Amino acid sequence: MFKKILIANRGEIALRVIRTCKEMGIKTVAVYSTADKDSLHVRFADEAVCIGAAPSRDSYLNIPRIIAAAEITNADAIHPGYGFLSENAEFSKICEEYKIKFIGASPEMINKMGDKATAKATMEEAGVPTVPGSKGLLKSLEDGKKIAAEMGYPVIVKATAGGGGKGMRIIKTEADFKKGWDDARQESGAAFGNDALYLEKYIEEPRHIEIQIIGDSDGRACHLSERDCSIQRRHQKLVEETPSPFITDELRDAMGKAAIKGAEAIGYEGAGTIEFLVDKHRNFYFMEMNTRIQVEHPITEEVTDFDLIKEQIKVAAGEKISGKNYYPKLFAMECRINAEDPSNGFRPSPGKIINLHLPGGKGVRIDSHVYAGYVIPPNYDSMIAKLIISGQTREEVIVRMKRALEEFVIDGIKTTIPFHIALLEDENFKAGNFTTKFLEDFDFSKIKK
Amino acid sequence: MFKKILIANRGEIALRVIRTCKEMGIKTVAVYSTADKDSLHVRFADEAVCIGAAPSRDSYLNIPRIIAAAEITNADAIHPGYGFLSENAEFSKICEEYKIKFIGASPEMINKMGDKATAKATMEEAGVPTVPGSKGLLKSLEDGKKIAAEMGYPVIVKATAGGGGKGMRIIKTEADFKKGWDDARQESGAAFGNDALYLEKYIEEPRHIEIQIIGDSDGRACHLSERDCSIQRRHQKLVEETPSPFITDELRDAMGKAAIKGAEAIGYEGAGTIEFLVDKHRNFYFMEMNTRIQVEHPITEEVTDFDLIKEQIKVAAGEKISGKNYYPKLFAMECRINAEDPSNGFRPSPGKIINLHLPGGKGVRIDSHVYAGYVIPPNYDSMIAKLIISGQTREEVIVRMKRALEEFVIDGIKTTIPFHIALLEDENFKAGNFTTKFLEDFDFSKIKK
Repeated sequence: MFKKILIANRGEIALRVIRTCKEMGIKTVAVYSTADKDSLHVRFADEAVCIGAAPSRDSYLNIPRIIAAAEITNADAIHPGYGFLSENAEFSKICEEYKIKFIGASPEMINKMGDKATAKATMEEAGVPTVPGSKGLLKSLEDGKKIAAEMGYPVIVKATAGGGGKGMRIIKTEADFKKGWDDARQESGAAFGNDALYLEKYIEEPRHIEIQIIGDSDGRACHLSERDCSIQRRHQKLVEETPSPFITDELRDAMGKAAIKGAEAIGYEGAGTIEFLVDKHRNFYFMEMNTRIQVEHPITEEVTDFDLIKEQIKVAAGEKISGKNYYPKLFAMECRINAEDPSNGFRPSPGKIINLHLPGGKGVRIDSHVYAGYVIPPNYDSMIAKLIISGQTREEVIVRMKRALEEFVIDGIKTTIPFHIALLEDENFKAGNFTTKFLEDFDFSKIKK
Repeated sequence: MFKKILIANRGEIALRVIRTCKEMGIKTVAVYSTADKDSLHVRFADEAVCIGAAPSRDSYLNIPRIIAAAEITNADAIHPGYGFLSENAEFSKICEEYKIKFIGASPEMINKMGDKATAKATMEEAGVPTVPGSKGLLKSLEDGKKIAAEMGYPVIVKATAGGGGKGMRIIKTEADFKKGWDDARQESGAAFGNDALYLEKYIEEPRHIEIQIIGDSDGRACHLSERDCSIQRRHQKLVEETPSPFITDELRDAMGKAAIKGAEAIGYEGAGTIEFLVDKHRNFYFMEMNTRIQVEHPITEEVTDFDLIKEQIKVAAGEKISGKNYYPKLFAMECRINAEDPSNGFRPSPGKIINLHLPGGKGVRIDSHVYAGYVIPPNYDSMIAKLIISGQTREEVIVRMKRALEEFVIDGIKTTIPFHIALLEDENFKAGNFTTKFLEDFDFSKIKK
């Protein structure tokens, strides 16, 4: 087992990793930017090294400085957390060269899964369902119609040069194909000077459902069931839960098997997540793979009793998994408490926390690096706490979450707590009736200021 | 179901009950003394009524004022918590008369179990093992010898007028009987002017193990396994855990069955605890029954996923139990954080909490009513927080507990945290090797100041 782990991250995830290391009897090294000198991860680590100024390129993304910190402190492994360098193939490679174990994916794996086209092709080859689409660009209107007829409507045509929603049209029937084709070509030609289109199956009422997996160095993988992350605002997850209210036992098994197949096909080692889109007919399609721990990992921990950081460290140290899969024994949900004003377009609200009171009691877990008097720096992402609730039923989790959110006192800044309370009161959300589009139609004026 | 529950208590247990009521959609009424006006239980309840001055007889023990508060606020039930009026038969009776449901035992039950001799006789009759002893006083040396021979050595002779350890002798063999008899008689005669003795089986290396039970109004009871509360200082529990490191599956079943037998024999309704002494040979003996929720109930909740307060309320409202028993799926431990100075004979340390930082992360639960700026009044018991840790193994719980205790920051007062850390580092404790006498031999000088 490792003797000393350097955590190449900040905030709650740095503290999260330190906690598990302490429980495993492993020494820890924190690195920090000057903006983070008063952070709890610095205080709770056995050693701490300042690696530069606030901009991430000068500190948390600065590979030479992080490697130097590991060398100076004799750390034999680096945990990258999420974000920053956690999916940086070069960093993983340099760690290898310096004989410091990178607690994450190999450079090859990161490269393979980091490129979306390669990832999709790899998974397709492994037999994991992916979103059906044209192989490359459409040659003609007829070519498009033929492919669409094969995969079935609805489909979506997208400009190869597109972005920001421009140059794409959803086509529901063959009769509409020509109009969609013409409109998309015209729009993309005007916007990008390139009217080439490709085509994909359109996923109706999609849900974002991901499967947590762990693979070991023997190439064996297991899954720890799903997390439903459909509640997103501009592709930012705000609330996650497990089990998903939409997933049946059969679908969980099918998705779990597919995720294992994908992970084993690439010989994946470590904790990872395979993200799927699930349509209203409960078809599922590979979206992408995250080769790192995720923000929302604690909900899986709460329902399986696993410490995923511990498992990551154990697997990185060469331990083998049992091969058994893990199913939810409870229900859990996470609300991300961000320093943002939900009544004002979620505008960031950095600053000093004057008073802080955390909720407690049964089924309440808080992962947070903040404290009363802490000044939230404007330089980093705005998440200041994860409130993780578990219970015997989804209903119990929802009422408990609301009760806990109402106990929170964070004076001095705005937070997303009022948004979460409004969400928990929404009848569709309570009924488990939501897709990734849910927040597009959400009435944010319901949020109490 | 009840519409509004008045909580006739203060501190963490009042808040604990309020939390569950909120989750059940039941309105709450807090009562408080003038010393507690800034307490969180007052802030988090839907309504709050001041019932008098700080001395408990003027407020938390003042039945007319509490009943008046319930009448004024239209509460249809009262939860008494633990301590104060929770085992007061008169209070239970008056609640009945006022048609306010007392969420606790009936007056008859409280009386029956409140008197130790009656409780013992009742349990004996129900077939629950009790500590064997002479029926009444010993008539003569020969009478004593005969009874001792029947029940087997070691035995203890005790002065009927005794107290404070005076007038009692442990007798290990028949050869020693005369000396023990003479010494005890002489001592009690001198001390109390009464040298009458009775005799009991001497419990060797006793552990305090209690069984949580719930009974419903049909007279059916189930058990939720044991809690080991052997770590006590002057009969005050400091640390509790479940499962007990000493209890085998067979013993758990036998004790669970005995507890159910006892509860059903008296038609016990509600949550209750049957306390046993277990000797080094794993014989168990009924000690007493607590007809209320206990301080240490959360460890049972953590390993069974039950909300015991919710179960109490449901049973009080007439719901029936399933009849199934519940066994630990995890390990859990509770450290009582008291405002006391463990390096100074556990002297109370009331006062203002200047800074407060609570531990968090996986497996950490905190039940507490305090916050930064809170002034601990000198009038009540000194417990300010319960730190409840769960994990997959006892070892994991111990390292996690230590990690969490080390994260705690409570500035302004002394607390028992340093004692708990020293305890967790004790090899015998870590090995699960302890009895109720453990702290008598504990080296308190090991505690870091």
